[in-house]
Amino acid sequence: MTDPAARRPVASRPRTRRGQDTREGILRAAEAVIGDLGFAAASIADITRRAGIAQGTFYIYFQSKDEVFRELVIEMGKLTRAHLAEAVADAPDRLTAERRGLRAFLGFVGTRPTLYNIVMEARFVAPDAYRQYYTTFARGYGQNLAAAVREGEIRSGDAEIRAWALMGMAITLGERFGIWEGEADLDRIVDEVFDMLERGLKP
Amino acid sequence: MTDPAARRPVASRPRTRRGQDTREGILRAAEAVIGDLGFAAASIADITRRAGIAQGTFYIYFQSKDEVFRELVIEMGKLTRAHLAEAVADAPDRLTAERRGLRAFLGFVGTRPTLYNIVMEARFVAPDAYRQYYTTFARGYGQNLAAAVREGEIRSGDAEIRAWALMGMAITLGERFGIWEGEADLDRIVDEVFDMLERGLKP
Repeated sequence: MTDPAARRPVASRPRTRRGQDTREGILRAAEAVIGDLGFAAASIADITRRAGIAQGTFYIYFQSKDEVFRELVIEMGKLTRAHLAEAVADAPDRLTAERRGLRAFLGFVGTRPTLYNIVMEARFVAPDAYRQYYTTFARGYGQNLAAAVREGEIRSGDAEIRAWALMGMAITLGERFGIWEGEADLDRIVDEVFDMLERGLKP
Repeated sequence: MTDPAARRPVASRPRTRRGQDTREGILRAAEAVIGDLGFAAASIADITRRAGIAQGTFYIYFQSKDEVFRELVIEMGKLTRAHLAEAVADAPDRLTAERRGLRAFLGFVGTRPTLYNIVMEARFVAPDAYRQYYTTFARGYGQNLAAAVREGEIRSGDAEIRAWALMGMAITLGERFGIWEGEADLDRIVDEVFDMLERGLKP
């Protein structure tokens, strides 16, 4: 898959409010259709039908289904980071921030399961965007963990490896308890996980 | 996706050695082709061409591409569990078993990236098989953790939630360090993760 943005000679962001609304409508329709049917089965006609626009209008805003898909992956990354940043903004220390961040993430994925599907499908449809998604997360996460070690808020250890390990935990717990099981007691799950993370498994 | 096995009136396992070899050849060709191209793009013609058999021969052993795909997911589960069971067989206690199991898993996924791709793609192609795959793992894992709590080998805590958290860690670390980065120092990664898991992050 080539990068459609590289082939586009003009700015892809509409300048008018109406243009921005139409672009947003296409993204939301694409999220619903691709998140539900999967990338291969979802057609641009499905997306424009759901958005209530002519098929030609799609191409004013996006060059291809690939491009709209990649935009959704980037959007999910921004949304998730913004949501977590807000959840941990007032945390007095790193362990509290970790706990609040995990709780916010588990709640968040349950509210946007179609967008979460799209990130997972990116592993196959746009592997570079998928790696970028998690690498960007891991970088910020690792910086926070390294700073917490310097501040003496957590024990010393490799920040990058810890970041990937903790992200992995959150991803799978989010899928299992945030998406599969809609009624899970997320507070209890976070309590259990944090008991293990803070104090360890060793008796 | 319906369950093809439910529509098959006769046993699907060949009785002769030659039949078993042909079925195994189809599975290995399907692993390579689907793991490489993805489920949608891979055709039965691609699989039979790679296996070096006539297309009609495929249907003696499998009813559909769906069926061979599901068989690969089940096979990956069995292979992984057998590999881990062997790795931890002589472990004197649960924490040692956890450490050896994670090390074995990270090494294993790197040796079978195509089969790992297939499990990940099952999330979209055969969601019930995907859930079954991880649920089966989590059940056995949780039983081991619960037994270790009873034996006093680890601190008490919810075995099911811990099992999913630890599986999630292993999945993401396996993808990041076992597949993306072929040359990662897996022993160091396991040491770092286990320092966190055994003793916790709290100073």
